[in-house]
Amino acid sequence: MKFVVLTIFPEMINPFLESGMLRLAVERGIIDARALNIRDYADGKHRVTDDKPYGGGCGMVMKPEPLSRAIGAASEIAPTARRILLTPQGRPFDQAMAQYFAASDGLIFICGRYEGVDERICQEMVDDEVSIGDYVMTGGELAAMVIVDAVTRLLPGVLGGDESAEKDSFSGGLLEHAHYTRPSVFGGEGVPDVLMSGNHAEIEKWRRETSLIRTFLKRPDLLEKREFSREEKHVLTEWCRRIEELVG
Amino acid sequence: MKFVVLTIFPEMINPFLESGMLRLAVERGIIDARALNIRDYADGKHRVTDDKPYGGGCGMVMKPEPLSRAIGAASEIAPTARRILLTPQGRPFDQAMAQYFAASDGLIFICGRYEGVDERICQEMVDDEVSIGDYVMTGGELAAMVIVDAVTRLLPGVLGGDESAEKDSFSGGLLEHAHYTRPSVFGGEGVPDVLMSGNHAEIEKWRRETSLIRTFLKRPDLLEKREFSREEKHVLTEWCRRIEELVG
Repeated sequence: MKFVVLTIFPEMINPFLESGMLRLAVERGIIDARALNIRDYADGKHRVTDDKPYGGGCGMVMKPEPLSRAIGAASEIAPTARRILLTPQGRPFDQAMAQYFAASDGLIFICGRYEGVDERICQEMVDDEVSIGDYVMTGGELAAMVIVDAVTRLLPGVLGGDESAEKDSFSGGLLEHAHYTRPSVFGGEGVPDVLMSGNHAEIEKWRRETSLIRTFLKRPDLLEKREFSREEKHVLTEWCRRIEELVG
Repeated sequence: MKFVVLTIFPEMINPFLESGMLRLAVERGIIDARALNIRDYADGKHRVTDDKPYGGGCGMVMKPEPLSRAIGAASEIAPTARRILLTPQGRPFDQAMAQYFAASDGLIFICGRYEGVDERICQEMVDDEVSIGDYVMTGGELAAMVIVDAVTRLLPGVLGGDESAEKDSFSGGLLEHAHYTRPSVFGGEGVPDVLMSGNHAEIEKWRRETSLIRTFLKRPDLLEKREFSREEKHVLTEWCRRIEELVG
């Protein structure tokens, strides 16, 4: 799996590629990740990568030629990689897209800066426009890193146990259950008894139930189109009963 | 405005604080941003910050004591700052939340790693749980940086022109219009005539219209609850007419 990040700030990208899980994934030969400086593909002594917008207005626009050459260089490194422009206008990135990308050979990220990228690059040289959320950042660098992180941790051999990624939030359409570790009492607060019981069936049941409760309370939108299992329906019915009791 | 990021990977955060817009904002004294290493608040020779989960299962959980002390230290640096836990379970971060945060004195970010954070920390020492999107990352570090970036660029004196942040995608409920810069022909593609016309009223009209078209095509969900202006209604009616003509 090859990642190539096109940016005018490679110094923001490299420390991230060199720490934590990504360093491990590189060392294990699972991914090859690098940043190319768009400025290296710009003309002239000053290697200018931006210019004023046609039609006037404030802010600068990324010039098409340096970007076009940088995309060409990235495509030589990763010929079958999808070319992704990071932009708040893109399709929203989610866990399903992370899984889809994890099944590909590689990804080339084009990090916009300034007001934006010349429209002709967007239309001619980009496979996907992707957004990591409904907010605006100074550039696409952090968005590229978010996608590299979310995709890499899904690749076989990256996380310790195979289970780790499967039990994540969203992977079963629900948020993850609560976690507790030592000490057994912290700040006057204990740990739910069931977790200390050693009864694995009960622990699993408690975890599935808290996972459902947390999703219901924190992100009810995730439940709207869910097909509930028999156990989940039972849990939900049980809550209704308790709430009815409370309301009297 | 003070940002304190609590992490076991400060080396991921610092290069980001030292480049681009954030470096400028620090130099201009608009923000004070730093990372504290949670490990520095852990006990023993090995300064362990994680432990096995109660109830068993794979993955590790962040211990409450070091985190609690690190949050205490951060609160001394930024006493009135909101304490934000980055987690896929949190409230979704968006541009409105960025504006809300930009009006505060400061933000303390707690970056979870491993499977998660001991539930007692989440319940007792955190003001907001925030998620930057419906995907799972290895840790909260990138999410913290995304929020620092999105908030900082809204602070007065950070971006060049006052207009830059106001014309962003989402700020008027719409995506931003298309951008073009020199050369006037690139890869055989020209620039829309109106942008070369010098007629500012027409250029503004074209920009508002393309902004509406792009939102309609790329993110129709953003238009669902919009109160359309008279001009926007006119544009939409005009499209209907053209589509009807096409369909015959």
